[in-house]
Amino acid sequence: MAEKITPRQTDFSQWYQDIVLQAKLADYSPVKGCMVIRPNGYAVWERIQRELDQRFKSKGVNNAYFPMLIPESFLKKEAEHVEGFAPQLAVVTIAGGKELEEKLVLRPTSETIINSMFAKWIQSYRDLPLLINQWANVVRWEMRTRLFLRTTEFLWQEGHTCHSSLEEAETFTRTMLDVYREFSENVLAMPVVHGQKTESEKFAGALRTYSIEAMMQDKKALQAGTSHNLSSNFAKAFETKFLDKDGKQKHVFQTSWGVSTRLVGGMIMTHSDDKGLVLPPALSQTHVVIVPIYKGDADKARVLAEAEKLAAQIMNDPGVRKLPWVVKVHVDLDETKQAGWKFFEYELIGIPIRIELGPRDLDKGQAVVTRRDLSKKKFLPLASIPETIVKLLPLMQKELLEKASTFRDANTFEVKTYDEFKSRIEEGGFFIANWCGDRELEEKIKQETKATIRCLPFDSSGEIQKTDEPCFMTGKKGGNVKAIFARSY
Amino acid sequence: MAEKITPRQTDFSQWYQDIVLQAKLADYSPVKGCMVIRPNGYAVWERIQRELDQRFKSKGVNNAYFPMLIPESFLKKEAEHVEGFAPQLAVVTIAGGKELEEKLVLRPTSETIINSMFAKWIQSYRDLPLLINQWANVVRWEMRTRLFLRTTEFLWQEGHTCHSSLEEAETFTRTMLDVYREFSENVLAMPVVHGQKTESEKFAGALRTYSIEAMMQDKKALQAGTSHNLSSNFAKAFETKFLDKDGKQKHVFQTSWGVSTRLVGGMIMTHSDDKGLVLPPALSQTHVVIVPIYKGDADKARVLAEAEKLAAQIMNDPGVRKLPWVVKVHVDLDETKQAGWKFFEYELIGIPIRIELGPRDLDKGQAVVTRRDLSKKKFLPLASIPETIVKLLPLMQKELLEKASTFRDANTFEVKTYDEFKSRIEEGGFFIANWCGDRELEEKIKQETKATIRCLPFDSSGEIQKTDEPCFMTGKKGGNVKAIFARSY
Repeated sequence: MAEKITPRQTDFSQWYQDIVLQAKLADYSPVKGCMVIRPNGYAVWERIQRELDQRFKSKGVNNAYFPMLIPESFLKKEAEHVEGFAPQLAVVTIAGGKELEEKLVLRPTSETIINSMFAKWIQSYRDLPLLINQWANVVRWEMRTRLFLRTTEFLWQEGHTCHSSLEEAETFTRTMLDVYREFSENVLAMPVVHGQKTESEKFAGALRTYSIEAMMQDKKALQAGTSHNLSSNFAKAFETKFLDKDGKQKHVFQTSWGVSTRLVGGMIMTHSDDKGLVLPPALSQTHVVIVPIYKGDADKARVLAEAEKLAAQIMNDPGVRKLPWVVKVHVDLDETKQAGWKFFEYELIGIPIRIELGPRDLDKGQAVVTRRDLSKKKFLPLASIPETIVKLLPLMQKELLEKASTFRDANTFEVKTYDEFKSRIEEGGFFIANWCGDRELEEKIKQETKATIRCLPFDSSGEIQKTDEPCFMTGKKGGNVKAIFARSY
Repeated sequence: MAEKITPRQTDFSQWYQDIVLQAKLADYSPVKGCMVIRPNGYAVWERIQRELDQRFKSKGVNNAYFPMLIPESFLKKEAEHVEGFAPQLAVVTIAGGKELEEKLVLRPTSETIINSMFAKWIQSYRDLPLLINQWANVVRWEMRTRLFLRTTEFLWQEGHTCHSSLEEAETFTRTMLDVYREFSENVLAMPVVHGQKTESEKFAGALRTYSIEAMMQDKKALQAGTSHNLSSNFAKAFETKFLDKDGKQKHVFQTSWGVSTRLVGGMIMTHSDDKGLVLPPALSQTHVVIVPIYKGDADKARVLAEAEKLAAQIMNDPGVRKLPWVVKVHVDLDETKQAGWKFFEYELIGIPIRIELGPRDLDKGQAVVTRRDLSKKKFLPLASIPETIVKLLPLMQKELLEKASTFRDANTFEVKTYDEFKSRIEEGGFFIANWCGDRELEEKIKQETKATIRCLPFDSSGEIQKTDEPCFMTGKKGGNVKAIFARSY
């Protein structure tokens, strides 16, 4: 039997770590700050990859692969970029037994190495738009790390596109932000606020950065994905040019956008409870587990036969087969473990639906069905179970999103003054305030409250929200916008 | 229009490079020895990944991810292993702006870091077998590199398994070799010889190494995949132990096995011709291209309508939908390019089937269908085309394998004496000889002929072939085996 999971109320951070380790999602490695993603965690990442990859391809994006090693001089070509990443670099100085003439940096992101290739590949407007994505590992040396959320090496995807105009680049930047938002809600069941990052929070080298921000159960924010309009900043540094229709050589306009294994951490902190992982069906490898319960040999033969029959009925049900996921049903035949132990284990690893099947249930032609996130046992006629599964899995997916949205909304507050904000920041949540945009005041707030501007949220038409109300810090009116302040991961 | 491809007869190596660059499969990067895999090449790798991943999972293998950075001390724990890989290591000495206390090596392979975790995860025989695979990048500093075939950084999968007995490990090693063999033949359409590596050619740290060996069109061998029985060599170095049923602590027995992006290069050199890439349908992204041919506007409307109709008929054909691949049909609507240019381009990038559709063909109710590998135009009734595609794609897949097998067999020779071998090695091919197993003679042959023992090939029952015939070098009888000698990539 695994150890007890620390309750969220006692220590949220310890609870998170307990879930990750005990559900065997990931483990600490002997290399400082690097984690091992175990099969249970990697299966979730594979599902995230598959869902995102389909969405990218539907936008015309193709996958490619670029070298992990970047000449040190490349990073220095874009001034803001190297300043942003220099403290986090890991550097190869020896290779093949010799000191390298030029040091090679492990990619913290690939704008520079990719631009060195784009500059070669792009000649004319006919080569545009160029839409590329890469699934890769990256390395950013971090002081404080946390499984999935912040690790020295992590897995991610990074999209890199080139366009013939700034407008088209801006549109694509926003298109990919929308892909992330829709994916977060429909696959991770994780509601997000989307908006623009402030100047001090934007990507090093970007014109503008947009992000999606989720609220974890401890009411802290998690930046779950970013999409950058790079304008021609990298194109100018690398001379990535095209011959336009008007016969003139012009720099391309670029975007980049990425999400990482951090999403697995965000998903855990959005849905899971004190019993373990709660996994949206869209991310599950196994959707239903059937636990046969019996004592004697006569019961055993009968119960096992019925369990296998039920599993086949579920998997072959026409409605089940029409679900957007390949539904896998596992019949637990392990005789070395008690039913109670099994219930505990399947709750820990987050199988969405558990079915208990015993001789007395069979006598009544029924079984006990329990949804992982509700933990209420329901006695259902055997014949109705396949059609119940057809309804239950999408319903669970939908209700997980609703529950998280309700929680997020209940912990999102408008604040009118900085004093009000300071008095409430300890309870946690998203705080919407009218904001003048002063960068020094932004830094002051961070120092005093540990909260940052997560984003300038968009309204329903995708615009930053301008307001005539006074700034919550300065009291000045004019040119203010809505901003979301929160403590974050 | 792209440059001309160097004919194979003129310069095979240049031909290969021309195909890779002009078909936009890969490109040289600014980092010495590292390549960029472009979308056309990465799409092939994605198909390889998907096909292999399904096969691994059907054997009970789960994916995971381990850190790329390995403490230098780990590699030194297994004496043969460090000796084998030391000259090829790339080393991180600086990170986060500071000199590291212990240098970190970029994984050349992951036996050591993975064993450090296995040692922690495995307690009892109940935890066995443990079957793990990882899709990852690895780095081996190479002097001479070649696109796909040998690069400093490459992509691969590495399987790592733990078992409770040497026999079980041996069986699994061979099972995975069989997976590679079946995959090579059925997906890559690349015939392979499978057999055991000699002591001097085995993996650094293994008890035994098995490999699959393919013959390229220049009659050189390509090692396409390896499967290693590691016995307890790494388990002893890392104390990876389990409590067995008999109450005793024992070291686990392990296997590892891998294939890499090198397979893309092998596939190219097996099938392609002087016009460009020939791609087996199993690896194609687009299977059929329809090129509409017309002059006036009246013809244009009619031809385009028929082309779109035909594309839909093919994709919706019940027989086509039952093929093991999702068949994609592309209608080329580009008006800026001539039909001749398009034919050239689609031959270069290897679309398996081309259909030409013009007004005169339409008048006759027919179209021109050309299989990429045969280049013979066939006039076929429009209505018969979907059912033709149903037959043609699997037939092409099958015949590519047959053609390559015939070529390989025609260039495989038995040699009785070393003089005979030396006189024929220049023509290339696989040379089967009776072999005494002397390691010093093996080295002498390598020095004198640049040929190595590719493997000790298995007979139909999977055994090394013992022989009473005299060794082709020493003339001595007794304890000899069949060995395949060849020059290789």
